This record gives sequence, structure tokens and C-alpha cells, in this order.
Amino acid sequence: MSVSPAYLELEDRFRRVALIDEATTVLHWDAATGMPSGAGCARADQLAELRVLAHREMTDPAMSDLLDGAERGYASLDAWQAANLREMRQSHLQASALDDALVSHLSQATSACEMIWREARAESDFSAVLPALTAVLEVTRDVATAYGEAFGLDPYDALMETYAPGLRIAQVQPLFDAYEEFLPDFLDAVLARQKEHDRPIAPDPVPVDTQRRLVERLAAATGFDFVHGRVDVSAHPFSTGYPGDQRITVAYDPQNPMFAIMAALHECGHAAYERGLPMEWARQPVGSSFGMVVHESQSLSVEMQAARSTGYLSWLAGEVRAVYGEHPAFETENFQRLQQWVEPSLIRVDADEVTYPAHVILRTRLEQAMLSGDLPPADLPGAWNNGMKDLLGVTVPNDAQGCMQDIHWFDGAIGYFPTYTLGAMLAAQLAEAAHAKRPEIAESLGRGEFSALMDWLSGAIHSRGRLLPVNELIIEATGKPLGGEAFKRHLEKRYLSET
Amino acid sequence: MSVSPAYLELEDRFRRVALIDEATTVLHWDAATGMPSGAGCARADQLAELRVLAHREMTDPAMSDLLDGAERGYASLDAWQAANLREMRQSHLQASALDDALVSHLSQATSACEMIWREARAESDFSAVLPALTAVLEVTRDVATAYGEAFGLDPYDALMETYAPGLRIAQVQPLFDAYEEFLPDFLDAVLARQKEHDRPIAPDPVPVDTQRRLVERLAAATGFDFVHGRVDVSAHPFSTGYPGDQRITVAYDPQNPMFAIMAALHECGHAAYERGLPMEWARQPVGSSFGMVVHESQSLSVEMQAARSTGYLSWLAGEVRAVYGEHPAFETENFQRLQQWVEPSLIRVDADEVTYPAHVILRTRLEQAMLSGDLPPADLPGAWNNGMKDLLGVTVPNDAQGCMQDIHWFDGAIGYFPTYTLGAMLAAQLAEAAHAKRPEIAESLGRGEFSALMDWLSGAIHSRGRLLPVNELIIEATGKPLGGEAFKRHLEKRYLSET
Repeated sequence: MSVSPAYLELEDRFRRVALIDEATTVLHWDAATGMPSGAGCARADQLAELRVLAHREMTDPAMSDLLDGAERGYASLDAWQAANLREMRQSHLQASALDDALVSHLSQATSACEMIWREARAESDFSAVLPALTAVLEVTRDVATAYGEAFGLDPYDALMETYAPGLRIAQVQPLFDAYEEFLPDFLDAVLARQKEHDRPIAPDPVPVDTQRRLVERLAAATGFDFVHGRVDVSAHPFSTGYPGDQRITVAYDPQNPMFAIMAALHECGHAAYERGLPMEWARQPVGSSFGMVVHESQSLSVEMQAARSTGYLSWLAGEVRAVYGEHPAFETENFQRLQQWVEPSLIRVDADEVTYPAHVILRTRLEQAMLSGDLPPADLPGAWNNGMKDLLGVTVPNDAQGCMQDIHWFDGAIGYFPTYTLGAMLAAQLAEAAHAKRPEIAESLGRGEFSALMDWLSGAIHSRGRLLPVNELIIEATGKPLGGEAFKRHLEKRYLSET
Repeated sequence: MSVSPAYLELEDRFRRVALIDEATTVLHWDAATGMPSGAGCARADQLAELRVLAHREMTDPAMSDLLDGAERGYASLDAWQAANLREMRQSHLQASALDDALVSHLSQATSACEMIWREARAESDFSAVLPALTAVLEVTRDVATAYGEAFGLDPYDALMETYAPGLRIAQVQPLFDAYEEFLPDFLDAVLARQKEHDRPIAPDPVPVDTQRRLVERLAAATGFDFVHGRVDVSAHPFSTGYPGDQRITVAYDPQNPMFAIMAALHECGHAAYERGLPMEWARQPVGSSFGMVVHESQSLSVEMQAARSTGYLSWLAGEVRAVYGEHPAFETENFQRLQQWVEPSLIRVDADEVTYPAHVILRTRLEQAMLSGDLPPADLPGAWNNGMKDLLGVTVPNDAQGCMQDIHWFDGAIGYFPTYTLGAMLAAQLAEAAHAKRPEIAESLGRGEFSALMDWLSGAIHSRGRLLPVNELIIEATGKPLGGEAFKRHLEKRYLSET
């Protein structure tokens, strides 16, 4: 029995939509890296048009018939084709939930708000971005309602579904509540143990060009391929691209010469996932990465599980001295303690892995309230500042270091923040499984070598694409469903047991 | 009488096609500047898809009816709308000449060939690019035939029509023949006059970063707006962009520290034209630049007519000394002679304005022969080398400095080369008119100021868009049709009369 023409036609149509999405990716990357500041309006119009075109292709009236026809021929499909068809149906359901006007409206509102945010954040002027943020929230609420109706979910769950398929706030909240309960005593214990030593010596500033050399060297060591990728600078580090062209960005801070390094290793984890996807299924749904939880687990497998392990840091200290020059801050023990330093702080992307979940828990709470209307966006700064005080005991001095620090809400991404901490939990679970199956990983990381780890992750996650539903993939890779226990074991080991 | 719904619908459809074309522009710019070398295949697929989408919009079955309907309401249109409709009809005629498969085939063949050319040129390996060039020629022949049938023109004229609307090889050839006849005696006279002095002293190498500072300073002085534009590096300098985002590129050569400077001024002329187009007609055909003859006249108005004038060079010598440092090569008289130096040479983009037309005349002859099939592409290197010997007396040492030096043929651009020399002729004609109407231009250029010249060009050319047919625009601006006499007068004045 041969594969149906309907299925083959679908593959061609999804390939063409993927090409439009790839063009969109380049335009977004350009907007965040080198685009002239005055070109934002033109770019917003272009992105809106490309999204409408992709959306129109996805919601073409013929698509429903093609999906029905392909599903009637399900028995003729192999496992990858069948999974591809399942993912096609899901993509179509999602795309059909929004009409052309709403897609265009969303694109315009988020592009405009993102541009204003970039300038307003520099001035720490929340009032300057408030009207644009309010507009983004309004259209995001319409989007959540439309997805909710299509998926049969509450609005917030419906938005989460688009970032982390299959996850519901009712499952996530208990993991977050348990962490909120675990954190105070654990944090006290970690801080008390830290006090047994002097505060580690901080490094002197390092010129950006010198930092860039180290970034490129370490990126290459993780397998990042400069023939099929580039590293650039943007306000907020990110990873983007498509098969054959991975682009990561970092933000250099001369005063903090390890920030860009760790951010780059994080983005390299994302890039490794994309690069390891099955090429023969490129531009098909089954050949795509999973939602952001799995993606974040890959970036944190590199940045947090591997690169902040005591063994890797010991090797990295030598590399840092070789490129940055000798400095007491880069002496092995001092360097390890700096990179594993725990301290409640203001900025999520600078946070250590112990306090990071608190940043996410606050955002998850606030974005649900903004979406429901319980928290008017004008009240966001106050609610933020109170939350930071309650959760981490820190006082927010201004909105640039408070509720304006992240691009997400200003770019319309509500329901995205939980994926960071769920990703951290999955990364810890994957690390337990990886080290159990491949004991040589720890030793090779101590020599700065990522290949053993990457090989295991590639087999367990990257090369699997979306062949299995995400919960089955996690069970296959780690032997159990996603939970928070491996993450707590990891933290207790690294911060209370290891020397 | 109000404007017809059909006309308004056409404006909306052309706006949407323009947005797709803008996305294509960004993808092309990225491919020529920062794209990783291994990403060429993915980019070719993306460009092909975007071209197909734009082409499909342009050739939508409803377009013919809309154009017919709008033309029935012609009396209700103002002059700009009427000109817009005329240009819409012409664009539709051109787009409809090619079917989807041919558009996609052309895009694939040229993207692939361009990538191979970039590597093959570095190795001076014509045989490596020959199969891809042959494929490009074959599809270009199909394109020329299709355009020829639509326009009622011979294949070569049909391709020229797409770059220089309204021009025919039968009109161009006499101008080129006249120049070929004029050149030998004139060149002898110029070279004899040059021999009256010592050869000017050449500059020492200048680091790229230092050159970049001067490029940015001079670009700004021409009115280039870094809030709405950027300057990057590519193998072959070019100008691209759209309203609100002008991007020019240069190629830096440390050994030749004035090459990038003059190339940047050239591209700034292109950018000024695009920036000066009527914003209220952005993304409409009537608000677009004319074909390449007018475009090149604008770049050469800046680079050759203005920036190589004796007065401007006198000012520029001081700027160069201020940024590059003192050097005998930058003493005013020596610097002027260097920048006005005439010498038969191998590379078109390095050629002086006296010998440049010979490069174009050769290419025009060879591309006609390749298109007709009289010259098999395998014989191109030999024909090229013979032509360079006959026209300029130079011996071509390798194909990188011979028939592989320009991107055009490898990118499918046949019928484009004549526009360079026609642009030079138009620039000379515009300069005569500008100086006659605004005598202060010469003096202001002597102070490094472009605003008087740009103001005149903006009024005469930039702000007119495509309101008038090109021949009427030229007569309105200069009082006569395009010819070669002003260019000869300009050369005789600069190279045989001025001190």
C-alpha cells in the first residue's frame, strides 16, 4: 500500500510554510542584531505580511480535506510519516484558531511594542511603553480566547500549549509550589555554607573583543559549527535559525567577563538541539524541535548541568586564564565559587540556578493575573516589586531592573516563562539518566570535551524530533515523567555536598 | 468622480507584493554580507519560495480584471495615480510573461551559481563554475524568450527592458560605437598629458578600521542616514534596501585605501536616490526608482561627477590626511592626480571613467553572443581575454581578474552591463544641467558639501519617482534626450583642459 497523494501534498505544503517561516526567522534576527533603529516600522509591516502569508497557506480551505484524506490512508504510513501527520493536524488546529486579521494585528502590536520597549528600557521609563504593552495584552487576550476555544482550554493553558504542548498550569503549579516551599530553608543553608569562606574575588573588566575570542572557542568546543552558524550581539541573548543556519547572540558586558561566556554556552545548547534534528525530516513538523521545555532543557544541559559542574569549571578556569590573562578571580577554586555563587538578585538572566525559579514563579503568577485582567498593566511595576521582596527579599530600584528587564511580555509571549524552570527540571532529570548510562561523561567534561554528552543527548532527544509525544519522549529518555525531584537532588548535591 | 475600488484594490495588492520583495531584499543582503557559508542551499530555497509567492500575487487571475476596471476609471485618477496605474500594467505584463516554474527555476539556478562563483573566483577556477553558469544561461535564455514574446522584442532587448525600460540595443549600440571610435585617440592624448608629470606617489596600506571611519564620515556628508541605513562589507560593493532602510556595502582593501572610499560614495549616490523617492508613494510602482540607467546616473553623479571633481578632491585630500595621517600620496596635487589617474586595466570596478566604457562595451558584446548561443560559455575566457587585448591593450593573467570578476552573469543578470555606461552618460548630462541652473554647486563641493547638488538631484530626479516615462524625465531635467556628447565634453574638460 503506497503513501496517499494527500499526504505527499501535505508534505509539500508544510515545506513551503516552513520556507516562509525561515524568511521570518532571518527578518527577526536582523531586527534584533543589525537593523537600523529607524527601520522598525517597515520591518513590522514585512513580518505581518509574511505571517499572514504563512497563515493563509496553513488555513487554505483545501487543508482540511487533505488532512482527512491523509488520515484515511494512515495505515500506509511509516512511524515517522504517521507522527508527521499527527503533528500536521495539531499545527493546522492551532493555525486555524486565529483569523488573518488577528494574526496581522498580533504581529503589528508586538513588533511596535518591542521597538518601543528597546528605547524605554534604556530610560527605565515604564510609562513610555505602557500603552504599547496594554495593546499587546489586549490582542494576546483575543489570541488566548481563540486558542482556548480551538483547544478546549482556559486562556492561560491555551497560550502555554503553544510553547509547551501538553502541559497545563494545573500540573505545573504544584511543581512550582513545591519549589517555593523548598527554597527558603535550602537557600538559607546554601548562603550559610557560602559564608564559611571569604567572598570570591571578582574579575577586572575584559575588553569585548577578548571575550568574543573565548566565546567562539568555547562555542566550537560544544560542536557549534561556524560554517552553518554565526554568533552576534543583541540586547537579550537568543538562539534562532533553521537547518543549515544556526544563529546565536550574546550580550557582552566588559564589567562581567563571564556573563557572555555562560550565555553563549546556553545558546549553544539550543543550537545543538536544532542542529541534531533529523535532516531527512527538515521543514516537516516531525523534524522540528519540541516546545520550549525540551528546548530549554537542552540549553541548561550545556550551561547549568555541564558547564557549571565543578569538573568542567576546573578545566574552564585554565581556558579563561589562557585567553583573559592571569587574575586571582580565575584561580581554579575562586573561579568555581564565582560561577556557582548563589545570591538573590534582580535580573533573571543573571540569576543563579537556585534563585532562578523564583523569578519564573513570580512572572508566572503576574502574567496569569495580567491575562485575566486581575492585574491592570499600569499596576505591574508595584506588583513586581512586591513579589521580588516577598520571594527573594530584594528591593527593585527601577523598572529597567524590574518589570522591563525581559523582552517576553513586550513581544506578546505570555505563558512562556514557566518553560525556563520546567526546562531546568528536565535538564536535571536528563543529566541523571545520561551520567547513569554513560559514566565517561563526567570525566570528559573535566577535559572540556562535550562530545560524549552531546552524543547521548543527540540519541535521546535531538535525533528523535517529534516522533513521540513529549511525555513519552521524556519517559523513554529518563525512565519517568517530568518532575521536580531530580532538580532538587542536583541542587543539594552541587550546593550542599560537593567540595 | 471618485477613485474606483478596482484601483484601490490594486494599490493594496502592489503594497503586499512590495512587502514580499522587501523580505527578499533582506535575505539577499544577508546572503552577501554575514550569512554562514554553509547556509547557501537553505537560502536558495527561501528566495525561490518568496519569488514564487510574489509572482503568484502579481499574476493572480483577478489582476487582469482589476487592471481593466481601473483603466476604465482612468479619468478619475490624478497624475500620480494615473502614472501608478501605467506602471502597474507594465509590471503585470512583465510578471505574467514568466510562469511559476520558470521563476522558481531561475531563482534556484542563480542562487546556486552565485554561491559556487564566490568560491571558484577565489581559486580562479572557471571550470568549477562553468556547469552552473551554463545552467544559468540556459534558464536566462528561456526567460529572454518569454519576455520577448510578452513585450514583442528580441531576446536581448527583452532582458534590457527589465533593467532599463524603453532602451533598445539598436539605440545603445551607436552610442557605444561612437565611444569605441572616440577612445583610442582620446586615450593617447590623456596618457601623453599624464606623462608630462612624474607618476603620482601611491599611498601606504591603511588598516580597515581606519578606512571605515572615513567611509562613515563621508557617507554622512552625502546625506546617508545611519538611523535608516547601514554600511557593511561584501565581496562586491552594492546598494540595496527600501524606504526607511538603506543598506550599502563596500569591500576594503588595505593596500588601496581609496578604493572603499570611492565605492562608498558611489553607493551613497544610489542610496540618496532611494531615500529621496516620494514617501507617500512608497511600495507603489510610481514611487519606485527607475531602471538601472537612472540609478547608475545617481551613483556616478556622486562618485564621478562630484567626488572626482578637482574642487572636491582638493577638500577630500585634507579629510584623508586628517583620518589616515600625513603622507606624500595625500598632498593635494598628488592626491588629485591619483584619483583622476587614467590607465587601461583589468578590473571594471577599479577602472577610471575614461576606460570604464570599454569594459562595458566588451561585456555587452560577449553577453549578446552568449545569449544567442554564438559564444559557448566554455569559450568565454578566451573571448574575454582577446577582447581586453583589442580594446584596452591589456593581457589578462587569470580568470579571477578576467571573466569571473563580476557577479552579474553568475547571478543571471544579462542585459545589465550597458546600464553602467549609459548611466555615466546621463550623469554627465545631469551635471551640465545642474551646474547651469545652480552655479553654487561647484563651490559647495569644494567645501565638501553635497547639499546643493543633492537638492537639485532630488528635485529633478529623486522626488519624481516614475511620474513621467524615463525619456520625458531626462528631457525635463536636462533639456534633451540621453546622448553621449555631454560625457565626452566632461572627459575632455577634466582630462585635457583642467589643470
